[in-house]
Amino acid sequence: MVNLKEDERLDCLLAENLRIIQSPSVFAFSLDAVLLAKFVYVPIQKGNLIDLCSGNGVIPLFLSTRTKGTLTGVEIQERLHDMAQRSISYNGLEEQITMVHGDIKEMPKMLGYGKYDVVTCNPPYFPTPMKRERNENEHLAIARHEILCTLDDAVRVSSQLVKQGGKVAFVHRPGRLIDIIETMRKYRIEPKRIQFVYPKAGKDANTLLIEGIKDGKPDLKILEPLVVYNENDEYTEAVKEILYGRG
Amino acid sequence: MVNLKEDERLDCLLAENLRIIQSPSVFAFSLDAVLLAKFVYVPIQKGNLIDLCSGNGVIPLFLSTRTKGTLTGVEIQERLHDMAQRSISYNGLEEQITMVHGDIKEMPKMLGYGKYDVVTCNPPYFPTPMKRERNENEHLAIARHEILCTLDDAVRVSSQLVKQGGKVAFVHRPGRLIDIIETMRKYRIEPKRIQFVYPKAGKDANTLLIEGIKDGKPDLKILEPLVVYNENDEYTEAVKEILYGRG
Repeated sequence: MVNLKEDERLDCLLAENLRIIQSPSVFAFSLDAVLLAKFVYVPIQKGNLIDLCSGNGVIPLFLSTRTKGTLTGVEIQERLHDMAQRSISYNGLEEQITMVHGDIKEMPKMLGYGKYDVVTCNPPYFPTPMKRERNENEHLAIARHEILCTLDDAVRVSSQLVKQGGKVAFVHRPGRLIDIIETMRKYRIEPKRIQFVYPKAGKDANTLLIEGIKDGKPDLKILEPLVVYNENDEYTEAVKEILYGRG
Repeated sequence: MVNLKEDERLDCLLAENLRIIQSPSVFAFSLDAVLLAKFVYVPIQKGNLIDLCSGNGVIPLFLSTRTKGTLTGVEIQERLHDMAQRSISYNGLEEQITMVHGDIKEMPKMLGYGKYDVVTCNPPYFPTPMKRERNENEHLAIARHEILCTLDDAVRVSSQLVKQGGKVAFVHRPGRLIDIIETMRKYRIEPKRIQFVYPKAGKDANTLLIEGIKDGKPDLKILEPLVVYNENDEYTEAVKEILYGRG
């Protein structure tokens, strides 16, 4: 049984296999988070994986289907951390996934430096706006704007947490490509794989997936483009496969 | 009439409209050069455009169909410069296109600083190998390896030649994306548009088109992917349109 609060729903993740608690007024995961969880390299049999800015835990939940390693999620908003905890319990994944309620900037000191094989992060995308322009819903504002976590924070902390030779993967907007590359290099994470996501054929990319290796050698690959919707505004086969776990 | 030397051929460019002299043993233009000539922004009615590392002049020849502006090509290899000159004469384009025989590094002093609206460059892609690993054909080695022109040279000279607010466009390998972005920013050319070219659906990109603006504001767009071959190993419609001028 699950205890749903206010307008929360118990939504499906990966067809019938997983359930996740969401709420339109507090937080609902985005396609971007799922794409990151599918894009990132993961060791299959073991390893320590950590997800920063974890929200309702969508990335650790999704990654539990791809690896037998241990998964940690870090979320600063108590309400979202609580949603993630209840989803993990509902799916019986307490042994594999641990949610930490706290600020990612404290994590290296708290959890240890250089201990993780893989770090993922779907950080807030937008620079902090003036107070009056912010989303009035503080939960959504914190998730979307660089209020409590800037791109520099996300990359620096990821670099502190990951092992030498370990992988770090982010999802962001293509307009921030140059910032993200420069920041990754600043913190010794060498970009190795990039995939651009296009809303439709013929449109500019609207999402960027990027993975780097701590102290890796320069050798960047641009993976095949991923297109989200077909001409009838339905998900493409490639996206259905990612979302519903076909193939 | 045209005077063809040794194994030179008079090939078609843009269906029947233009002819270009090439030679398998000296230099033949690549699809990359044509893609750059199609990708770059050009003013239609007037303007000064310059192409660096111009080879047999494929980019100025192609651009003459897109603009009424004046075109300059710079090529260091006398033999290639001569091929370009003869192609320009054959097509009756002497009034619009001027070929300069010389080192691009001398051009700002020779032609003037900040005089051009648009600079294009399809530079040598590969770092200079050891003498014994080089292509034994010196013409091809100079065109392909950074022997006489490095990426830094190409970007620095482009930045010196272009006007404030003018456009600079390059074609290169995706593995050099980070180098090219860092070098462009070093010389105050802000990357604004990138297009990745994929040999086939499902493959990694093998070519990168990038355009920046001198002293432009950061705002990068990733254009729709361009795929070269379809599943039957024929050019896709998008590439046929570029090569043969349909549409």
